[in-house]
Amino acid sequence: MSEPMNRQELMKRYPLSMKVNSAADLKKLKPEQLPKLAEEYRDYLIEVCSRNGGHLGPSLGVIELTLALHRVFESPKDKILWDIGHQSYPHKMITGRFERLQTLRQQDGVSGFCRRHESEHDIFGAGHAGTSISAAIGIGEGYRRKGDPHKVIAIIGDAALTSGMAYEGLHQAVDLKKNLIVILNDNEMSISPNVGAVNAFLTKKMSSPFVQKLQDDFRQFCDSIPVVGQEVKEVLSRVKHTVKNFFIPTVIFEGLGFRYFGPFDGHDTHLLIETLENVKQMNEPVLIHILTEKGRGYAPALADKVTFHGCGPYDRDTGKIIKEKGNGAPAYTKVFADTLLKMARRDEKVVAITGAMPTGTGLTVFEKDLPDQLYDVGISEQHAVTFAGGLAIEGLKPYVAIYSTFMQRAYDQIIHDICIQNLNVKFCMDRAGFVGADGATHHGVFDIGYMRTVPNMALCAPRDERELQELLVAMDQHVGPSAIRYSRGNGVGVELYEKIEDVVPTPWGTGELVYLGGPKNSMPTDAESPSQRSIPLDWMERMVRVKKAHVDVTLVGIGISVQWCLQAAKKLAEQGINALVVNARFVKPLDADLFRRVQKMSPRMITVEENVLMAGFGSAVMEFYQGEGVLHQMEIRCLGIPDQFYEQASQGALQKMAGIDPDSIARVAQELCQNSVEVWTKQQVGGKSA
Amino acid sequence: MSEPMNRQELMKRYPLSMKVNSAADLKKLKPEQLPKLAEEYRDYLIEVCSRNGGHLGPSLGVIELTLALHRVFESPKDKILWDIGHQSYPHKMITGRFERLQTLRQQDGVSGFCRRHESEHDIFGAGHAGTSISAAIGIGEGYRRKGDPHKVIAIIGDAALTSGMAYEGLHQAVDLKKNLIVILNDNEMSISPNVGAVNAFLTKKMSSPFVQKLQDDFRQFCDSIPVVGQEVKEVLSRVKHTVKNFFIPTVIFEGLGFRYFGPFDGHDTHLLIETLENVKQMNEPVLIHILTEKGRGYAPALADKVTFHGCGPYDRDTGKIIKEKGNGAPAYTKVFADTLLKMARRDEKVVAITGAMPTGTGLTVFEKDLPDQLYDVGISEQHAVTFAGGLAIEGLKPYVAIYSTFMQRAYDQIIHDICIQNLNVKFCMDRAGFVGADGATHHGVFDIGYMRTVPNMALCAPRDERELQELLVAMDQHVGPSAIRYSRGNGVGVELYEKIEDVVPTPWGTGELVYLGGPKNSMPTDAESPSQRSIPLDWMERMVRVKKAHVDVTLVGIGISVQWCLQAAKKLAEQGINALVVNARFVKPLDADLFRRVQKMSPRMITVEENVLMAGFGSAVMEFYQGEGVLHQMEIRCLGIPDQFYEQASQGALQKMAGIDPDSIARVAQELCQNSVEVWTKQQVGGKSA
Repeated sequence: MSEPMNRQELMKRYPLSMKVNSAADLKKLKPEQLPKLAEEYRDYLIEVCSRNGGHLGPSLGVIELTLALHRVFESPKDKILWDIGHQSYPHKMITGRFERLQTLRQQDGVSGFCRRHESEHDIFGAGHAGTSISAAIGIGEGYRRKGDPHKVIAIIGDAALTSGMAYEGLHQAVDLKKNLIVILNDNEMSISPNVGAVNAFLTKKMSSPFVQKLQDDFRQFCDSIPVVGQEVKEVLSRVKHTVKNFFIPTVIFEGLGFRYFGPFDGHDTHLLIETLENVKQMNEPVLIHILTEKGRGYAPALADKVTFHGCGPYDRDTGKIIKEKGNGAPAYTKVFADTLLKMARRDEKVVAITGAMPTGTGLTVFEKDLPDQLYDVGISEQHAVTFAGGLAIEGLKPYVAIYSTFMQRAYDQIIHDICIQNLNVKFCMDRAGFVGADGATHHGVFDIGYMRTVPNMALCAPRDERELQELLVAMDQHVGPSAIRYSRGNGVGVELYEKIEDVVPTPWGTGELVYLGGPKNSMPTDAESPSQRSIPLDWMERMVRVKKAHVDVTLVGIGISVQWCLQAAKKLAEQGINALVVNARFVKPLDADLFRRVQKMSPRMITVEENVLMAGFGSAVMEFYQGEGVLHQMEIRCLGIPDQFYEQASQGALQKMAGIDPDSIARVAQELCQNSVEVWTKQQVGGKSA
Repeated sequence: MSEPMNRQELMKRYPLSMKVNSAADLKKLKPEQLPKLAEEYRDYLIEVCSRNGGHLGPSLGVIELTLALHRVFESPKDKILWDIGHQSYPHKMITGRFERLQTLRQQDGVSGFCRRHESEHDIFGAGHAGTSISAAIGIGEGYRRKGDPHKVIAIIGDAALTSGMAYEGLHQAVDLKKNLIVILNDNEMSISPNVGAVNAFLTKKMSSPFVQKLQDDFRQFCDSIPVVGQEVKEVLSRVKHTVKNFFIPTVIFEGLGFRYFGPFDGHDTHLLIETLENVKQMNEPVLIHILTEKGRGYAPALADKVTFHGCGPYDRDTGKIIKEKGNGAPAYTKVFADTLLKMARRDEKVVAITGAMPTGTGLTVFEKDLPDQLYDVGISEQHAVTFAGGLAIEGLKPYVAIYSTFMQRAYDQIIHDICIQNLNVKFCMDRAGFVGADGATHHGVFDIGYMRTVPNMALCAPRDERELQELLVAMDQHVGPSAIRYSRGNGVGVELYEKIEDVVPTPWGTGELVYLGGPKNSMPTDAESPSQRSIPLDWMERMVRVKKAHVDVTLVGIGISVQWCLQAAKKLAEQGINALVVNARFVKPLDADLFRRVQKMSPRMITVEENVLMAGFGSAVMEFYQGEGVLHQMEIRCLGIPDQFYEQASQGALQKMAGIDPDSIARVAQELCQNSVEVWTKQQVGGKSA
């Protein structure tokens, strides 16, 4: 990454921007200075994102809108709410964060979304879609009760409008609010191109039956009027297109009780200012429909809107994304998508469902290759899940690919529609664990708890990309609800199966022994070699029995944390501690046989998970052992994410902060091994007294 | 409850119905016999519900529709999906469950909703609103892929259409489905009268700006046409009402890509049959809008639609609800609502939010008394929560009153909109635990797990109705997200606070000792007396120290399970076992000081909760003790609901089945006390070996 620009450099490149430290400064500019400011902002955005990555496209699309809003309204008295918030970079620049934007998405830097703790101008934090209208109505109602005449403005994209909760919000808006302005930022794009009927509305690709019927009925009606009927009919046929264009966007919003204005050119700052000035005077819910261009002003972003919706660092001149220095291993996302595609090619019952994220979930190639086996339902996680339930009833095998954090939206549907009915739906939760730069709203750190509590659900996680393939094939063979969680980022570099036929499915509900380190053992283990990936349990028991092996402590990982346990075990070996590494693979069903037998090899156990500690995998293990009545014979420690939210930082930094990295695991293991002799001899053994 | 009618009696009272054992039989009837069948069905429904309780109103409203559907379509090849399913009783009668309907909502009887395991005609189980369209689209897509020409029909009420997921479903419908029929059952009622804009649509109370603008724009357009302009304008002014009535329901559905028919009289069987016959031939998504009357044919149900939406047994002649034989104590629901009303009267910042359930949540009186402090947002749980977040930002204290089971719909909003931002929103989860007759879809048995995992959230549960008051006032004083769960049914009969000023708020995050039974102790405890409700911890420790008290086992309850622990402790005392009862009160934050000190009094502990065991309260306790490093010094057992779904039965029966009733607790405690001496002496104490 290049050095941040210093103040001098900024003053030189962005002289006008550096003078605008607040909306008050913005208001002092002459109207003719605004285009220059927009130009500087555009350049700066392109520059900052080329270094830090970020949601460049959405932010480039709303520069003029942002200037107009802050020019007309008085933030934070007037409340400006950005739905999702990934388009809020210009807003941050105007509200005193121009220089600091260079720390965008970095640890302790400016968040890539609105955050209440970051600025009084960030009214409602977000990251997930469709929340702004509901929040705005709540704030507006607070204003109404106080008699505060200020406006509440929600800016929402056309894609976010496909989410059910946005509709629930719109639906209540008319009941209550006089001071609400909704700005529909219509760029005909969500993260990937939109789907569905509301978008058909907005993009004016109205289904012909509607227009047809409109005309038919009106003609028929006109015929029934004696005198002018025929003439009206003629008018009607001439106004066909006018009717179409007029009715389409108007009807739904006016129908919902909004006063509708638009569509306007969202890049015409003066038109926007004029419109907003007018609307500001009105005393009813208003919806302003503007058309904007994602990536406006940066050719590569215009040419590839999907990539530049949210991207990593890129070369500014060429627009080429700079590949992250990785280990050369493919991303879990890619392995998932490739494997699913292979499974779908050999079995037409395999279908994939995505919620407006074919790219994020890796399914772009699948979409091109097998379009009839992929459903993009838009930002509609609830519908996605229940729709999958319907497909499953008809014998299909739906794979619902939704990020762990967004799956939260469909929790009730998972319980009520899938698990109660024990339907054969598979949930593929990408971005499980810390996600890094997107921060608190995007970490997928709750799914172990909320998934495993649901009867009939199975939940697994692969230790590496090869096991991801094995578990996916196992899920394919399993009948009933099941879920898999895997990490953001690259695999560990193990050999992958080329052919889907060769994949050996993981036996359902089984874990494995992966490694035993330490001076007392000479285990033939090479966790990365396909032929030596696990240690046979029987053999290990024999070795322990004949004292050829000894286990001081067992480290149990699930998913990616197995790798950290391995690293910790190697560190511990250097300190003379024999650590056995178990790959649980399944959170549910837990491998009862394995856990029973492992417990007999050592009373000390540490569970490690990249999920909140509360209700997580460690708790599942404790639940198992309390049911067995052996918990008091063990020293168990559970490592997971503490009970707090974490903002953006690198995944590695976050793992360290949470104390689930290899060093932390090794430290806890060491303490446990040192202290437990003492503790256990002091232990008070109680008994029945009565 | 009266005896079920035997076959002879049924033959006498319902001769035609008893001949119709399937849809095939129905098809054999002459058209003129249908009204007679409808009449018998109506009488039988009124009779059965008068005995068993149930969703009488909704089912009375769709008898004619049900007859028409089964007459025209061929179930289960044609798929009939009832949204929620509380209106499916006539459907059950036609599909071979006429006689068995007398077991409605009873253990091992007919479910009050559709259930796939009950009949091949119950296509998609439900209980929560708005799922039918999504499921129907999935099934329809399965049909399309197979080339099966049969139809998929979703019947959804106007109220369920306010749920976001129904909209998400409608939104995708047009993309895919040619064989989908949606029947909008418009009775202008949900559980309580509807709110919001879509309903304004459907009830034709269109907001005037829309019609106004429609006219204005059209006039303006006509003016611009030289010749016929003036005449068209005149026509327009005459057709005002026609335009209004024509456009309103049509526009939204045709706009979404459906072919729209209606509104029709939903009680005209022949008209419905004719319409369905026509629609059956069509090859595009169709929406049929019918108007029905909830409670049709039973005067008391027509007069009080809210009560008879879903009711307990009643006197058929008078329509008077038969009060359940209880302990005379008020329901938790009522205590909650009364207390909240008192809080709201003294503090206008206190506002209540309900999702179409002012009656179910007890807030009817609140709504009448303080209409400006109550928001009924319709069946929109997601919006309800984020809306509350907006209100909290403006300094209000929103109490979101949603049943535990429906709160699942808003899980993401709780995390993303409330807890990440640490907003002062209070969640009041009624019907936590088993709910009884409504069965698997309605039990509120997941909330402890899904709520406690979220950082910043607090979660408590009262042991009785007096503590419900104390905790509510404590929540009022607490700033930040918090939740309370309480049971369906009556309190235990303790004295309530009359005045809100007198309520002593529970100190935040504290539990208490409630009782110590057994021969070695003579504790001055009377758990039901306000003055002696808890045993001071210090005093108890002293008593144990000086051997005036002895604890064999500690029983820790949360919420209602404290009562069961008390009963178990009394049983155990008879067996000579000294059981200490702890009322945890808070799942989160757990009272660390109390749990630390209690653990020193006895190594044996049993936690009891009316929530799934997985990730529940017991796990929270184990998490605490593993963090303290003392788990190996304890014998802990967690009692909670096993990992399976439970269908309808009485709450007491369900608690027994789950093994969380007083007898089960006592049995486990006894075993623990007997076995643990042995186990503990045999225990292998491991140590560091290297």
